[in-house]
Amino acid sequence: MFYHVKNLQYNAKPTRPDAVYAKKLQEILGGHFGEISVAMQYLFQGWNSRGDEKYRDLLLATGTEELAHVEMLATMIARLLNDAPIGDQELAAKDPVIGAVLGGMNPQHVIVSGLGSLPVDSAGNPWTASYIGASGNLLADFRANLTAESMGRLQAVRLYEMTTDPGVKDMLSWLIARDTMHQNQWYAAICELEEKENIVVPSTFPRSLEKQAVSYEYYDLSGGTASKEGRWAHGPSMDGLGQFQYVHNPEPFGKKPRLKPAPLYVHDTVLPNPPHMPPMY
Amino acid sequence: MFYHVKNLQYNAKPTRPDAVYAKKLQEILGGHFGEISVAMQYLFQGWNSRGDEKYRDLLLATGTEELAHVEMLATMIARLLNDAPIGDQELAAKDPVIGAVLGGMNPQHVIVSGLGSLPVDSAGNPWTASYIGASGNLLADFRANLTAESMGRLQAVRLYEMTTDPGVKDMLSWLIARDTMHQNQWYAAICELEEKENIVVPSTFPRSLEKQAVSYEYYDLSGGTASKEGRWAHGPSMDGLGQFQYVHNPEPFGKKPRLKPAPLYVHDTVLPNPPHMPPMY
Amino acid sequence: MFYHVKNLQYNAKPTRPDAVYAKKLQEILGGHFGEISVAMQYLFQGWNSRGDEKYRDLLLATGTEELAHVEMLATMIARLLNDAPIGDQELAAKDPVIGAVLGGMNPQHVIVSGLGSLPVDSAGNPWTASYIGASGNLLADFRANLTAESMGRLQAVRLYEMTTDPGVKDMLSWLIARDTMHQNQWYAAICELEEKENIVVPSTFPRSLEKQAVSYEYYDLSGGTASKEGRWAHGPSMDGLGQFQYVHNPEPFGKKPRLKPAPLYVHDTVLPNPPHMPPMY
Amino acid sequence: MFYHVKNLQYNAKPTRPDAVYAKKLQEILGGHFGEISVAMQYLFQGWNSRGDEKYRDLLLATGTEELAHVEMLATMIARLLNDAPIGDQELAAKDPVIGAVLGGMNPQHVIVSGLGSLPVDSAGNPWTASYIGASGNLLADFRANLTAESMGRLQAVRLYEMTTDPGVKDMLSWLIARDTMHQNQWYAAICELEEKENIVVPSTFPRSLEKQAVSYEYYDLSGGTASKEGRWAHGPSMDGLGQFQYVHNPEPFGKKPRLKPAPLYVHDTVLPNPPHMPPMY
Amino acid sequence: MFYHVKNLQYNAKPTRPDAVYAKKLQEILGGHFGEISVAMQYLFQGWNSRGDEKYRDLLLATGTEELAHVEMLATMIARLLNDAPIGDQELAAKDPVIGAVLGGMNPQHVIVSGLGSLPVDSAGNPWTASYIGASGNLLADFRANLTAESMGRLQAVRLYEMTTDPGVKDMLSWLIARDTMHQNQWYAAICELEEKENIVVPSTFPRSLEKQAVSYEYYDLSGGTASKEGRWAHGPSMDGLGQFQYVHNPEPFGKKPRLKPAPLYVHDTVLPNPPHMPPMY
Amino acid sequence: MFYHVKNLQYNAKPTRPDAVYAKKLQEILGGHFGEISVAMQYLFQGWNSRGDEKYRDLLLATGTEELAHVEMLATMIARLLNDAPIGDQELAAKDPVIGAVLGGMNPQHVIVSGLGSLPVDSAGNPWTASYIGASGNLLADFRANLTAESMGRLQAVRLYEMTTDPGVKDMLSWLIARDTMHQNQWYAAICELEEKENIVVPSTFPRSLEKQAVSYEYYDLSGGTASKEGRWAHGPSMDGLGQFQYVHNPEPFGKKPRLKPAPLYVHDTVLPNPPHMPPMY
Repeated sequence: MFYHVKNLQYNAKPTRPDAVYAKKLQEILGGHFGEISVAMQYLFQGWNSRGDEKYRDLLLATGTEELAHVEMLATMIARLLNDAPIGDQELAAKDPVIGAVLGGMNPQHVIVSGLGSLPVDSAGNPWTASYIGASGNLLADFRANLTAESMGRLQAVRLYEMTTDPGVKDMLSWLIARDTMHQNQWYAAICELEEKENIVVPSTFPRSLEKQAVSYEYYDLSGGTASKEGRWAHGPSMDGLGQFQYVHNPEPFGKKPRLKPAPLYVHDTVLPNPPHMPPMY
Repeated sequence: MFYHVKNLQYNAKPTRPDAVYAKKLQEILGGHFGEISVAMQYLFQGWNSRGDEKYRDLLLATGTEELAHVEMLATMIARLLNDAPIGDQELAAKDPVIGAVLGGMNPQHVIVSGLGSLPVDSAGNPWTASYIGASGNLLADFRANLTAESMGRLQAVRLYEMTTDPGVKDMLSWLIARDTMHQNQWYAAICELEEKENIVVPSTFPRSLEKQAVSYEYYDLSGGTASKEGRWAHGPSMDGLGQFQYVHNPEPFGKKPRLKPAPLYVHDTVLPNPPHMPPMY
Repeated sequence: MFYHVKNLQYNAKPTRPDAVYAKKLQEILGGHFGEISVAMQYLFQGWNSRGDEKYRDLLLATGTEELAHVEMLATMIARLLNDAPIGDQELAAKDPVIGAVLGGMNPQHVIVSGLGSLPVDSAGNPWTASYIGASGNLLADFRANLTAESMGRLQAVRLYEMTTDPGVKDMLSWLIARDTMHQNQWYAAICELEEKENIVVPSTFPRSLEKQAVSYEYYDLSGGTASKEGRWAHGPSMDGLGQFQYVHNPEPFGKKPRLKPAPLYVHDTVLPNPPHMPPMY
Repeated sequence: MFYHVKNLQYNAKPTRPDAVYAKKLQEILGGHFGEISVAMQYLFQGWNSRGDEKYRDLLLATGTEELAHVEMLATMIARLLNDAPIGDQELAAKDPVIGAVLGGMNPQHVIVSGLGSLPVDSAGNPWTASYIGASGNLLADFRANLTAESMGRLQAVRLYEMTTDPGVKDMLSWLIARDTMHQNQWYAAICELEEKENIVVPSTFPRSLEKQAVSYEYYDLSGGTASKEGRWAHGPSMDGLGQFQYVHNPEPFGKKPRLKPAPLYVHDTVLPNPPHMPPMY
Repeated sequence: MFYHVKNLQYNAKPTRPDAVYAKKLQEILGGHFGEISVAMQYLFQGWNSRGDEKYRDLLLATGTEELAHVEMLATMIARLLNDAPIGDQELAAKDPVIGAVLGGMNPQHVIVSGLGSLPVDSAGNPWTASYIGASGNLLADFRANLTAESMGRLQAVRLYEMTTDPGVKDMLSWLIARDTMHQNQWYAAICELEEKENIVVPSTFPRSLEKQAVSYEYYDLSGGTASKEGRWAHGPSMDGLGQFQYVHNPEPFGKKPRLKPAPLYVHDTVLPNPPHMPPMY
Repeated sequence: MFYHVKNLQYNAKPTRPDAVYAKKLQEILGGHFGEISVAMQYLFQGWNSRGDEKYRDLLLATGTEELAHVEMLATMIARLLNDAPIGDQELAAKDPVIGAVLGGMNPQHVIVSGLGSLPVDSAGNPWTASYIGASGNLLADFRANLTAESMGRLQAVRLYEMTTDPGVKDMLSWLIARDTMHQNQWYAAICELEEKENIVVPSTFPRSLEKQAVSYEYYDLSGGTASKEGRWAHGPSMDGLGQFQYVHNPEPFGKKPRLKPAPLYVHDTVLPNPPHMPPMY
């Protein structure tokens, strides 16, 4: 259960409106690796977790913080949209400042949300739950989380480079710092689990059941051999259980497939000698 | 540029048809962490890479292999659908085998694809490019790849548990082994980069520009203190540049936001004393 | 900013697992009118609100409660999935109970989430932010909220009818009661605004600018006149500013449109006498 | 069954082309609350209606009118795109008018539709049926319709403010007037039903089955008490069946959930003492 | 502008309810090649058409008929859902008929639409406007229409095979016949245009501007030479302007691409010698 | 199975960067009729094909070539993005060139991909597998392919008109030529099949089972009779099996539908005399 306080976790006040930047900033609010994604991803992982309370707490605590980041960005975007201009093309063209603004805005910031933030990314795509992953396997999930924080901090840094507004930079410097923490934090949790389980997810599948002959072969299927120098192409494997082998343009192991003709009742293309096969009902 | 040979990379032949399992197997063909996702993710990362040829080669080589896995799964699913039954509810109910099959199939496997595989997941959602990530920052990208292989192998293992067909298990044992390699491989590439760049992505953002006071504080915003015991709550940070601090229910740093009323021309709710503000054009 | 406590707002414990019902219950978690939708809708409306603090508080308070409902449903679904069966078609057909379960489950509840809830609806579609509305006009928004609570309670009631599990019914009886409150609450807020603004949204657009001749005409464009008896076809209009008129099969007011042929540079279909028109650059 | 006449319901002719405005106008054609949405929503509600002919007629008649509005907007947008410029960045920059146009257009208006309208919104998102609601419960559905007309008229009014073209304004003044009628009309239909059924949807669920103790409690879960003054926090409830109660920061009623560990066959994270539990098949 | 009559274009009455078949039938209502798709595709093509009135009329007339087919299918599906069972897994398992029904239904047919049709396909995916094409080039558009009618009739035929209900078969025999007409009709329109424009779309692009050396070469990039026997590999090209050539495993014409390193301000991976390049602002 | 070589199939090098054109060019990379669509469509059709090896080879060979086109476009787009400007609105407005660029870019080209191509269209919508069709019926599939190549070449030609960059034009002249070949090729394959099967898909459905009385009637449901002159309205049908008939405003053949009231357990609107009907369980 959640409680809300009206104070923001940190400042979210631009020095001046900037409706074009508002559109860009949407990326880390409602984009693939934005704050809605991490909030939902961590909370679902936490709610679904069936094990160690320590990790459940970690997930729910961090997911709850991300909700505060959604709020900060929503607030910042609304303020960047203060008094956003509207107006037609002809007038806009006469004033290059307004023209640039009108051309670069997301029109839904006026038409749909009335100068409010939207749950969309910087190209206007609505947030979708297909962005997130929560598998029940914590090592897989924590890797997804480390990825999300890496992508998220990268995008926040790029957005930092794209503005000169001290208020926006102030807020981003906070979010970037929290992403530093969160990368460190998931990294720490991953290390704990990898120590116990080794690195290959899931660790519980018996090795004897996989085709071990190819578990450590690197297949170079792209012309040239530049990748031969990589660590993945020689030496002991990272899980310590095999030796990397470099294989250039490996041959296929399988046969040419030939599919059985379709029964008549699916009306695929007519073949010279179609198989007789009544529907199964 | 690509060349195709008709042989499969490995066998993809079930012992008997199983239209219900065909639906389930779609997950690792067209799902979030299925083979289309990894093929597209690695290829786009490779095509976009602006740096070391070694990594470019690694990405394109592995992306090309994943196309072969898409092909294997497409073939296997088509074969699992051989002579899939069709028929109505009344007749189905009389034969529990057929009833179970009809109830559990994806009807599009007959109606739409005529007993072919579909570019969808096990719930029938079409594959979408919003699943993939390619950021231009290789450490972020390799983490996304390790995540994808972890999720992908986990799902393949679960699917292995869900069938008794030796032919299907044979193919999965291959894919699971290749996922073992690919987890090792991205792990190796990550280690190389982390050694050079330390662990926080992106490594090129000056530390002085982030709000360093909060870069290593763990905020426990969920009741209880179970997560206090984690490695993330004390000791040196994983990047070696700070000390983790545990903070229970941290106070907000920001103020209560108050947004400027909207100008009349957006027709938000009328306030008692609406601000006078003509449209900017 | 948010704080989380580990206790659920109310019980969420089924008497026994029921993986098929878990799939159905997803509707009010991750469907169009599920709890994620109302949580996000109210919070975005609240964060974007530029007016009366009373309404901002109302929106944020209720949005925060909805997060607790998301949590309850996620927990309930995970428990309904406890020890969900897996297995193949042939074996399933031998045991009708297992067959029914396997046929009716969402396979992603095993393959993707490992017996956890998913941010999807009962047909497996991922939640999308295109479900929600937050316009900056509170009367429009509160109507959207009343709609969401009406649809939501209706779906919860239907789900109540679809189970005999006392634990599930207990939780639903809570959610249904809260939806009773929330319908009452948005209704109250709507009444306040309608009293001030009259009923047509937005109230700030000058009436003289709309084509008033047709502002109260009911156009019956479907054969028969059954709808003539409705309140909307005669008497004073609901906003008290006009008289409803019933018009059967109204004539068009406009002309047959004729579009200007496309310039050659867009390569539309060739016309006998294409217009000469160089590209504008 | 439908019949079409070539005349438009009302004029849809701009005074001059304006490709940037064409992009914006897409919102009320193919957006969440655009004309495609209302046409489809009312028609599906009508086709599915199992009751009073009067309401069925109302729904089908109004849905049919909305198809005419789709046509008017499609025509207007095609005309706004007449001779839309194409051209590259360098040339565009020399002429600010063309630059503003090129920057602000939806490029698909040239590349995809060849100067035609698109079934998308103003940010370019394709229309999706997940926008609409048709529940079989008419009170819920009519509320959805009132919401759609409120949002739709609001957006049309905002678009009216965003242009100075008399032809566009003329068409919008018609659509805005029809939305006035449609808000009045659904309002009238809602009143009829609320008189019979009271206000809480669905009215057929026995009150004794809901957790009545919390059916009229307002939970203020967001810091401060501004919302305490609202009508929803005191006095008789709007349905006349209870008394509103204001509760500040209510305590949880439920326990801390603890989920049963997952069986081994789903390969969630390994726990120290994993439960023994063979797959159910 | 449209007018609706209450009579259906043709009968849409099943002999008995069949909730499982209702789910399947959704494919040709709300699927990729269902009736909503063709209705919207033809209408948008018609509204956008800038040329010959004959084709505009053809498009609008046929689009209007497709609306009647949407209506017939919506009605049929609602009737197939009459008294659809609900109920839990345990009870269902006791009665195989009910079990089969419950397992095979789309749960949204109860929970969301209350026994009404939905604007979704047979796997439950909501209809999306990204299915349709309307390019302004009529030959391209008519080919899209012929494709849609081919896919649509194929799916209707498959659905015909999947039921024994005489009422359903009666309706499908009508729709299949209309698809016969519509395939013939688009075929006729295509022939008219191909006679005038030859077969390659668009016909207005000067041949001298394309790389004519490769305009008629068939590249066999998949092992084996089975496709060498096809008409496309030898003889005069179908447009009569060239000679087909068969080329086995053609060599690349291009170079190995090498992308310029990214400027520092995008924070891609650090290279040993990053280029000096200040942001352009 | 696939092999990759580093050389591009053809050149993909612009003369100068053009970030705005990069956004536009995305349409034929990741749009509805872009190269990802045709690659996936042909490969899935090939993998699923259950018949003549000649066609299977044709599909896989061409699908493999399309992967090379995806690569060329991804490379071209990355190069067009070289050193793309970033920066804020105020500065942008001072320099019209930069202003035009910033306004017209897809911001995700910086924030998300770090100057790389994206799997999206020119409006920023992610590629989705719902674009493609693979039915198992080759005549239907080849028509879908001819449509895709017609739309694809049309879009490439429009993009050719939208740039003056010789490098971009060079690449497009190649792609346009290959589309010429591919239109010819699918045309040839279609002719082969139509000769064997006649033109109506599927050819295997007994004509006696369709409602033949309406198989060749053209229904003009849109006012006026312009379409009466078309080839589809008179003379022998294109399949040679009937005579086209022109019918103006045809009467409905069906009755007014009346749906059975819903059972109480779905809680649709209350009717005066609701039917007694216990849930079926």
